[in-house]
Amino acid sequence: MYDVARLAGVSQTTVSFVVNNVASAAISQETRDRVWAAIHALGWRPNAMARGLRTRHSQTLGLISDEVATSPYAVRMILGAQEKAWAGSQMLLVVNTSGQRDIEQTALQFMLERRVEGLLYATMYHHEVVPPPEIGLVPAVLLNCFVADRSLPAIVPDEQQGGYTATEALIRRGHRRIAFVNETIPMPALFGRLEGYRQALADYGLPFDPTLVRRCHSNAQDTFAVVRELLELPDRPTAIFCFNDKMAMGAYDAIKRAGLRIPQDVAVIGFDNLELIAAQLYPPLTTVALPHYEMGQRAVELLQTLSAGEQLPPIQHTIPCPLVERASI
Amino acid sequence: MYDVARLAGVSQTTVSFVVNNVASAAISQETRDRVWAAIHALGWRPNAMARGLRTRHSQTLGLISDEVATSPYAVRMILGAQEKAWAGSQMLLVVNTSGQRDIEQTALQFMLERRVEGLLYATMYHHEVVPPPEIGLVPAVLLNCFVADRSLPAIVPDEQQGGYTATEALIRRGHRRIAFVNETIPMPALFGRLEGYRQALADYGLPFDPTLVRRCHSNAQDTFAVVRELLELPDRPTAIFCFNDKMAMGAYDAIKRAGLRIPQDVAVIGFDNLELIAAQLYPPLTTVALPHYEMGQRAVELLQTLSAGEQLPPIQHTIPCPLVERASI
Repeated sequence: MYDVARLAGVSQTTVSFVVNNVASAAISQETRDRVWAAIHALGWRPNAMARGLRTRHSQTLGLISDEVATSPYAVRMILGAQEKAWAGSQMLLVVNTSGQRDIEQTALQFMLERRVEGLLYATMYHHEVVPPPEIGLVPAVLLNCFVADRSLPAIVPDEQQGGYTATEALIRRGHRRIAFVNETIPMPALFGRLEGYRQALADYGLPFDPTLVRRCHSNAQDTFAVVRELLELPDRPTAIFCFNDKMAMGAYDAIKRAGLRIPQDVAVIGFDNLELIAAQLYPPLTTVALPHYEMGQRAVELLQTLSAGEQLPPIQHTIPCPLVERASI
Repeated sequence: MYDVARLAGVSQTTVSFVVNNVASAAISQETRDRVWAAIHALGWRPNAMARGLRTRHSQTLGLISDEVATSPYAVRMILGAQEKAWAGSQMLLVVNTSGQRDIEQTALQFMLERRVEGLLYATMYHHEVVPPPEIGLVPAVLLNCFVADRSLPAIVPDEQQGGYTATEALIRRGHRRIAFVNETIPMPALFGRLEGYRQALADYGLPFDPTLVRRCHSNAQDTFAVVRELLELPDRPTAIFCFNDKMAMGAYDAIKRAGLRIPQDVAVIGFDNLELIAAQLYPPLTTVALPHYEMGQRAVELLQTLSAGEQLPPIQHTIPCPLVERASI
């Protein structure tokens, strides 16, 4: 800083004011330009830690997640959050904890010490969480999760609407016997999508037939077996709504093995819109997307509002899950 | 800090010495304990930015990537890097740039200002890069990429060995007519895997038949068409090595559509070991893994060695790509 001040012909205090953009200091534009020219000429990097100490603005948001950035399922949440942070001239720092509590504590401590202006607490799949209480020391938004008493703002996908949308898409193609192969682990997605399925049937005056609703582990192999059974029913379904895209892979195999065509004989719709699967399957899979990108964006947007000092109740946002049409229904 | 000093009955300077673990300060263990007890009693968080200013140890590593944490392909690199960093009591900060040069510059500046002790520069797929020159201001390791003149240390997958391993696995199952469906974009994976395929054939005394080597866009649909052609050859291949797992999905469909069985009639081997695809396909796909997790670990290991001050030439590490056996060969 001494060298910069000397080259620019100003005091070190003036350099400091310019670097930290202190509005109250009456410094002419000409002087500011001279200081920045000297900084660039000398290749000086103003020390952000020193600057942070004075301004208390780190221009940093933190994202603490279990496995979002280390698994392929929900990575687009990070993309959405990151792009929104960039748009607000903020960096998004990502730390994954693999769900380990001690690592989570250290990550949180680390981010608080670096004075992040807000925290996202994100999970790979939509479920209830008990975050460390220190999360409340800065503005915080839960992403793809929620606390039981809804005391923290949360951004989650609208599972029920998603289930409704999938079922409705099939009904609109003329299907009346629609099976739903659901997951076995009790979680919001299981209950929400089932509720949406039932609601869509009811709204369109179709009966709810419990023999058409099955549950199995959410993988292709187990779904293969379940769909085989469904196809052997005397009054077999003409459409199958699979809880996720992985399961749709198993449904495809079972349908093809039975000598039936997709979608002419049996339509299939998935959930998740995992491009790796949905776009590569033959025929390409029509599915309902988890709106991960938009969820990430909305979470940062809310965080920016909160860290600007706005007082808001702990809103629980549900983001719609859109239909992604390909060729399987 | 004032309150801590008063509660512990010591000066603020003593508190500072204890917090920053200044070895030269002759402070008794009893005093140190008293200071820490006061810190815990008051719930005080020593300011890391202030501490960083003095000690110059941020205990932080930075990972700047194009899309590693925002796409499903190489996320396990982050997991490997993160776990190795944690083992060294370091945080791994992840910033994605979506490949935008201005964002990359800002991210780099940001991390340098926060005095990261080392930088990983990572790419989603293995290719040549031109990183910003400032990367050399701290120890840096390239992850899944390399510079043309090999002047920076790099950790990359061993594409040639991977291609060899895939081909050899098929030869060992008795196959003599082995097709290779390669990618079209010229990159190390395309050349390396082809070279490995040729070398394995040569080592086992099998002829290289150019009609069995095809190239197409690396997706299921285009591979479906290519594999159909291969299966119509008068002397059709009994095994197909696909450049990646997505392409293997297309090969599966073509083989099943032709009324042939996997692996009894035609064996299929992939590359990448994308769990989402390989574990869900029927039969589950035997493939060669890109060693992303280990690459991340090795990169941080090297970074830790370099940031400890060790002088090393810019080593180019190639990490072996292991065979992952499932049921398709």
